[in-house]
Amino acid sequence: MKRIKMIIEYDGSNYHGFQIQKNAHTVQAELEERIYELTGEGISISAAGRTDSGVHALGQVIAFDTVSTIPPAKWKFALNSLLPADIKVLKSCEVKKKFHPRFNAQKKRYSYFIYRSGSGQTFLKKYSFCTTEELDIGAMRKGCKIIEGRKNFQSFCASGSSAKSYDRFVSMCSLKEQGPFLVIDIEADGFLYHMVRIIVGTLLEVGRKNYSPMHIQEIIDACDRALAGPTALPNGLFLVKVFYPEDI
Amino acid sequence: MKRIKMIIEYDGSNYHGFQIQKNAHTVQAELEERIYELTGEGISISAAGRTDSGVHALGQVIAFDTVSTIPPAKWKFALNSLLPADIKVLKSCEVKKKFHPRFNAQKKRYSYFIYRSGSGQTFLKKYSFCTTEELDIGAMRKGCKIIEGRKNFQSFCASGSSAKSYDRFVSMCSLKEQGPFLVIDIEADGFLYHMVRIIVGTLLEVGRKNYSPMHIQEIIDACDRALAGPTALPNGLFLVKVFYPEDI
Repeated sequence: MKRIKMIIEYDGSNYHGFQIQKNAHTVQAELEERIYELTGEGISISAAGRTDSGVHALGQVIAFDTVSTIPPAKWKFALNSLLPADIKVLKSCEVKKKFHPRFNAQKKRYSYFIYRSGSGQTFLKKYSFCTTEELDIGAMRKGCKIIEGRKNFQSFCASGSSAKSYDRFVSMCSLKEQGPFLVIDIEADGFLYHMVRIIVGTLLEVGRKNYSPMHIQEIIDACDRALAGPTALPNGLFLVKVFYPEDI
Repeated sequence: MKRIKMIIEYDGSNYHGFQIQKNAHTVQAELEERIYELTGEGISISAAGRTDSGVHALGQVIAFDTVSTIPPAKWKFALNSLLPADIKVLKSCEVKKKFHPRFNAQKKRYSYFIYRSGSGQTFLKKYSFCTTEELDIGAMRKGCKIIEGRKNFQSFCASGSSAKSYDRFVSMCSLKEQGPFLVIDIEADGFLYHMVRIIVGTLLEVGRKNYSPMHIQEIIDACDRALAGPTALPNGLFLVKVFYPEDI
């Protein structure tokens, strides 16, 4: 029995999120079906992040046990030959038996893309929030700084979450301009349900001058989802990278 | 009777090119059907460039005659409400009766995108040629300079062309690096059948050091398609902009 770790990327546009569920096509179901086709094993995959419907991944990490004799580094090619065009294995290797992609993760990085040109939206609307409205970048940057740190993020957690604690450590929240894109990068040791999308929706309200960056501190202090901005659309969100300790 | 000019963008992935043909779905057919739905008129569209199957447009120009009372600037909104997500009108206005998008064009700009990262291809393979091979950028730039000017481009014209003359004036052929992309921009007063894709395929052979940039002059002088490189894949190609005299 070997434990295989894979880094995968996928276009989430045509999936009902990552996690397996009844009567809906998900990335996990697609992966497990293709592995069954390859080895005949009915395996169950663990993943670093359960991305929502329409959310994409450039560096999702998954792991599973197998008795197959396929060499670990060859899994990438074997599985890519069966996977549809919107899911791709970037790397495969063997890991320790105890490795769990979510529980062992030190932090994860998500990036949210905002596209600000009137031209080219036909190509980018599945992969970004497209808007030509004026946004106060300086104010949004101030808002990002207030998000950073270890705090209670209950105001940025959608209802229906089963989280036991709302404390999370956001080690980075930054905004960069890349040509016609605004990119919001967020790194944390863990994320609450819809946390990145509510943070982005709140930063957009700051960009629109609907409230000041300082108001974000009041939102955090209130521990009340109703005070934060709307949940940003899923299609601009990418799970970019998962970080692990070096000895895993 | 009014003559309407439109600037449109489209994702060519799901179309058999621009121009109308039997038993195949094309961008022109889609536009003409939606205009029929809107006004009941069986109009026929003229376009600046007849893009091939899989080729995209950021600034295709079309024109047609209509007796509809829709104000010219409102055509954009009326048609966008009926068009599928992969075709979008960026601008609509009235033009002189004699305006023809192809015959009046002074020059057109095409851009070809080459994506050079192993990560992210899932999102970009419909919109770029994805390759991680090493390319000699300096040699490709030298090759670009040899392409520029007024010359006989028969070596860069696919067979089956009905062109009367192979003389074209390439006013710009340049290569720029934009993050993980190489972008080849080509402007000319007209393009032969597959001309941009054969130029790109030839420049890629120079980048691979399969021949020197100077060999491009020999290819031009030979007036023989067999000597140039292979035709690059259509999906990296975009019709970016069409230029007209100011008084049109």
